Amino acid sequence: MTEKFDLATVYVSDAQYNRNIFFDTSPQAVRLYLLYNHWFMQTLVYAFIIVNLALALFEDPAVVPLPIWATSTIEIICLSAFSVRMVHYAKVIPKDKFWKDPKNICIIVVLSFIDLTIYGALKSTGYFAIRWSRVLRPLLLVNVTEGRQLRRAFRSIRNALPQISYVFLLFMFSVLVFSLVALKLFGKRGLLTIDGSPYFTDYLDIVFDLYVLVTTANSPDVIFSATHNIVFFTIFFILYIIINTYTFMSFFLAVVYSNYKKHLKEEVRQLVKARRFKMCRAFSLLHEARGEGGEPVVTQTKWNHLVKLVKPNINIAHRELLWSVLDDQNKGHIGKFAFVQLADLLSIQVITVKSQPHPIQICFPSMYNSPVSRFIRYVVHQRMFVYVYDLIILVNAVFIGLDEENPVVSNAEWGFLALYMLEIILKLYATEPRAFFARHHFWNWFDTIIIVSALFGTIINSALKHSGGYTSRQILDIIFILRVLRLIRLVDSIKRFRAIINILIKIGPTILTFGQLIVVYYIFAMVGMELFKGKVQFFEPNSTSPDQEYCGNPLLKGTTFAKLNYCKNNFNNVVSSFIVLLELTVVNQWDGVDTGLVDAMESNDNELGPSEAGKQKPSLMFKIASRRSRTVDGLLQRMFETDIRPEDFVEEEEPENINFSNPVFDSV
Amino acid sequence: MTEKFDLATVYVSDAQYNRNIFFDTSPQAVRLYLLYNHWFMQTLVYAFIIVNLALALFEDPAVVPLPIWATSTIEIICLSAFSVRMVHYAKVIPKDKFWKDPKNICIIVVLSFIDLTIYGALKSTGYFAIRWSRVLRPLLLVNVTEGRQLRRAFRSIRNALPQISYVFLLFMFSVLVFSLVALKLFGKRGLLTIDGSPYFTDYLDIVFDLYVLVTTANSPDVIFSATHNIVFFTIFFILYIIINTYTFMSFFLAVVYSNYKKHLKEEVRQLVKARRFKMCRAFSLLHEARGEGGEPVVTQTKWNHLVKLVKPNINIAHRELLWSVLDDQNKGHIGKFAFVQLADLLSIQVITVKSQPHPIQICFPSMYNSPVSRFIRYVVHQRMFVYVYDLIILVNAVFIGLDEENPVVSNAEWGFLALYMLEIILKLYATEPRAFFARHHFWNWFDTIIIVSALFGTIINSALKHSGGYTSRQILDIIFILRVLRLIRLVDSIKRFRAIINILIKIGPTILTFGQLIVVYYIFAMVGMELFKGKVQFFEPNSTSPDQEYCGNPLLKGTTFAKLNYCKNNFNNVVSSFIVLLELTVVNQWDGVDTGLVDAMESNDNELGPSEAGKQKPSLMFKIASRRSRTVDGLLQRMFETDIRPEDFVEEEEPENINFSNPVFDSV
Repeated sequence: MTEKFDLATVYVSDAQYNRNIFFDTSPQAVRLYLLYNHWFMQTLVYAFIIVNLALALFEDPAVVPLPIWATSTIEIICLSAFSVRMVHYAKVIPKDKFWKDPKNICIIVVLSFIDLTIYGALKSTGYFAIRWSRVLRPLLLVNVTEGRQLRRAFRSIRNALPQISYVFLLFMFSVLVFSLVALKLFGKRGLLTIDGSPYFTDYLDIVFDLYVLVTTANSPDVIFSATHNIVFFTIFFILYIIINTYTFMSFFLAVVYSNYKKHLKEEVRQLVKARRFKMCRAFSLLHEARGEGGEPVVTQTKWNHLVKLVKPNINIAHRELLWSVLDDQNKGHIGKFAFVQLADLLSIQVITVKSQPHPIQICFPSMYNSPVSRFIRYVVHQRMFVYVYDLIILVNAVFIGLDEENPVVSNAEWGFLALYMLEIILKLYATEPRAFFARHHFWNWFDTIIIVSALFGTIINSALKHSGGYTSRQILDIIFILRVLRLIRLVDSIKRFRAIINILIKIGPTILTFGQLIVVYYIFAMVGMELFKGKVQFFEPNSTSPDQEYCGNPLLKGTTFAKLNYCKNNFNNVVSSFIVLLELTVVNQWDGVDTGLVDAMESNDNELGPSEAGKQKPSLMFKIASRRSRTVDGLLQRMFETDIRPEDFVEEEEPENINFSNPVFDSV
Repeated sequence: MTEKFDLATVYVSDAQYNRNIFFDTSPQAVRLYLLYNHWFMQTLVYAFIIVNLALALFEDPAVVPLPIWATSTIEIICLSAFSVRMVHYAKVIPKDKFWKDPKNICIIVVLSFIDLTIYGALKSTGYFAIRWSRVLRPLLLVNVTEGRQLRRAFRSIRNALPQISYVFLLFMFSVLVFSLVALKLFGKRGLLTIDGSPYFTDYLDIVFDLYVLVTTANSPDVIFSATHNIVFFTIFFILYIIINTYTFMSFFLAVVYSNYKKHLKEEVRQLVKARRFKMCRAFSLLHEARGEGGEPVVTQTKWNHLVKLVKPNINIAHRELLWSVLDDQNKGHIGKFAFVQLADLLSIQVITVKSQPHPIQICFPSMYNSPVSRFIRYVVHQRMFVYVYDLIILVNAVFIGLDEENPVVSNAEWGFLALYMLEIILKLYATEPRAFFARHHFWNWFDTIIIVSALFGTIINSALKHSGGYTSRQILDIIFILRVLRLIRLVDSIKRFRAIINILIKIGPTILTFGQLIVVYYIFAMVGMELFKGKVQFFEPNSTSPDQEYCGNPLLKGTTFAKLNYCKNNFNNVVSSFIVLLELTVVNQWDGVDTGLVDAMESNDNELGPSEAGKQKPSLMFKIASRRSRTVDGLLQRMFETDIRPEDFVEEEEPENINFSNPVFDSV
């Protein structure tokens, strides 16, 4: 019987968390599977993945250099952990299924080991070596058993690609045709750009310029030479912008959006199907024929036992509530239809509000019920009380904006802190503390933490000031941020604003899922570091080195890149790489970031000087690479930007087939 | 009876074109109303509106200056025409309804007359005067009776505004809070921007900089000073960009989109209701009790008469077809339900394909049916024929890209032209000419026009060359464009591309409706011209004037605006104004366009030099104005960018309640 319950528990929690693993149903395998899914094991795996990814900080080119033996040892530990996890997985599922799912992880681990060995051997013998397997590391995040959601997103993108590619090809065709027109119209006119170079004479350059114009990054500079001479040519650019920037890009977005959505819907449908199937399996393990007409049912005793196993920390009231929802006719047993809903029910958050007397009322009942005390409590619960404090916050905002070195302003801060503390104390007096700090009272927590931290910060700061006259800039920064954060409370007072914030918070997790797409950045950062490390150098502003003017690379002499002091945009370590990639994502002036890096990159033939002949290839390569990065990321961003309807995603937590919006749910 | 038919005709055509005018039903008013809706009268009104708007080209600041008496006379003629139209309208509708609808037009006309009088009086006595009523002119386009669709769009926007404004306020709040944090974090650190000015020390400047960062126009330059000193500050900007640029802007877009759509749907629903109501009125005028159970019906004779009146140029086959669709049981009369569908049926485009023998077959039957002729026709209809010509086009594309001064290339052009002509002749030989040039055969028309024009252009060009050795650059331009346009034909050969193009063409009219929103640009151009005319001047590149360096405005000395030669971005005439506004719409580097203009504008106190005191106000004003323009336009653009589903819009042409997709429709 225990084994049956174990198996049923596994089915139900698999359904609840949408796991899709075809595990072995033998008792031993089920127990191993339970261990495999234990939160501690999962956290451990993620910890190792993060450590593995963080190695980029310490490996050459490093932010904090560590010797090779240290990083290698850490990496070997991580890889061993992944191997152990794989062995565990192999024990859980049938032998014949093993190579279906985790083969990617095995490949990554094996390749990493090989790379590590080669690298170690080459380095110890003094040869040049590249850690190419570092590119594979972020893929672990996707291929690990828990990366289902991310895999789903990737799969939807992959499935949507064919449709998207047609629009993209047509768009490229349009750009190519427009470039040809531009070449013919402007090429022979001998026009010059602002810096005096010939304008629109090379076909590939035109294609690139017009391609960039789609992102609007070089507008309006790129059109000046043409339109300054003949106003009529403006029509060419207007047409181009309308057709390519607006129509095609929007069409592209629309196609991506609708296709991605279509495929994601299909994925979710499959998920719901799989979930129902699992719940049916669980039901078939526990049912007995007892209902009218001998139909199979599950008794309350068995059900209680199952729920306790699935969710050990559920309280009795909550469990009783769930049962009363399922067994609405009080029969003492439920059929298949009701049983299947359990997985969905368990995902619903139930807030338990216990009406308890205030602790002060218990200790000092006469004082707490005195007229003065009653009056205070009455005032605190008034709408007016909130308005008064909103006004105080507004006044505080003005004070924050003023110069804090003025003694009046810095003393006023103590006053404001006192007022805020008073507010919290009054509220705690009027409301039962446990209710005040209930989990769903976000703003109460927010207020208290902000104010108490600010209080401590201010006290520490003034203590430091009085003792040594020295104030840490960092502490001041934190205090200032805490002060400004208080202002956010204003949002909560306006109903409409609160609604908007609630929606944003609701779609937050979805956006965070896409945050995992940091893997794309990581891969590009790795490749970029291998290609560009050390090519561009940043010198401190007070450095006297003559190289400062051209970022330490003679090829950048006199370029806008160096002039605008873009030298910090380099791939010299993983942090800089991430910043550069982020800047490329946000588009603008990336033209500058990009071309500078490309110019610098041509220092492969450093002693030869910039050779015009070999220039086209690598620059185009990098351009395409950087565009790709933008395209993929931009695409994903745009996707979740537009998809503000959370239904498609939260389905996992609250599926469609929950058809009782019982008032009991909201109130209990 | 004629009167009844007249009235019914009016109802049906009102339903067909979604007119919502409560006209007087007296016979005389109905006849006047028919005249009012005549296409000639409507065209005339639009012609006068266009002339009125085009006056901006000739009025000070003018592209082509005309004396005041000339422009005034033209304007008086236009205004008189509008007045006559209004009088006509007043005669058509009941007296008590008159002030409901066209009051805006009356106000505009009266105000224009007043402004004209004041301006004339002031100018003739030598005083300074502003033609302020010019701002009102584009509103005629919206308020004219035919501007229904545009009014509907505006109304939907207006109704969506309250919802949008809350998100916008919250967004602004977020920007203000971030600015405060930025002030506290960076203000006291004594950082400098690249050009050495203090960085992030003034609150209002920070707000503006961060506001611009949302459009990504000043990224990444604006973040350099901070992040170069302490990498940690990157987090501030990443957070800002994620929250404001991505989350809020997307949320804003989503709210605008869904609200606009909601209101537009409501509008369309009302339209459909009104249409049905009108058709019922028409039915009640013509019906007689003859059906089973004495239910009211309309006979075929009456129906035919009505259709002839509503659509005089309909051919008999088409009319019979419509009748057979409505009277599917051949009763000779139709009931109310069928009758109501008439308005929708009339809007459906029916393509009549007549199978006629080829003219050559009639004249020379033996030749046309000879084996050689048959073989030619067979070849032309083969798929291979299309592929061969696709290949020819590809080869042609390469030749177009080559230098056309090479004699081989220019002679090859004759070869290509001959090949294309041959293709058209062969196709005309194989297909019946009237079928080949049927209205829906877009690509045939396209090909023929392009090729024949190119042929003429090339002949004229070479004639000019041979006679005087002189080649007009304009003719060459046209020839080149025609050559490149040929390449577009490639799109038609690939099925997927054709599908995409068809979708784009289908949503084209919707986008064009929004093109009418040029009224917004016009209003901003008018205001801009009054504020900024003559402040920035453009000098020809070979000019020797010392003012050239700073666009003729000493205030612009040494600014990036002047350095980058942005001088052509001015409001000195209506064409320049439109170009500047378009550039602002396309966002990038508008920072440059904008601040330059603002700097220049402060030359109100020209002899005083740039006074720091009065600087904040007007610059902010202009910034806000220019942002507004962007916001409204951007909003509208984004709206139709995202709304690629044409169902909401084409409803007017093909409403939902057309529930017979009879195969007879597609085949006839």
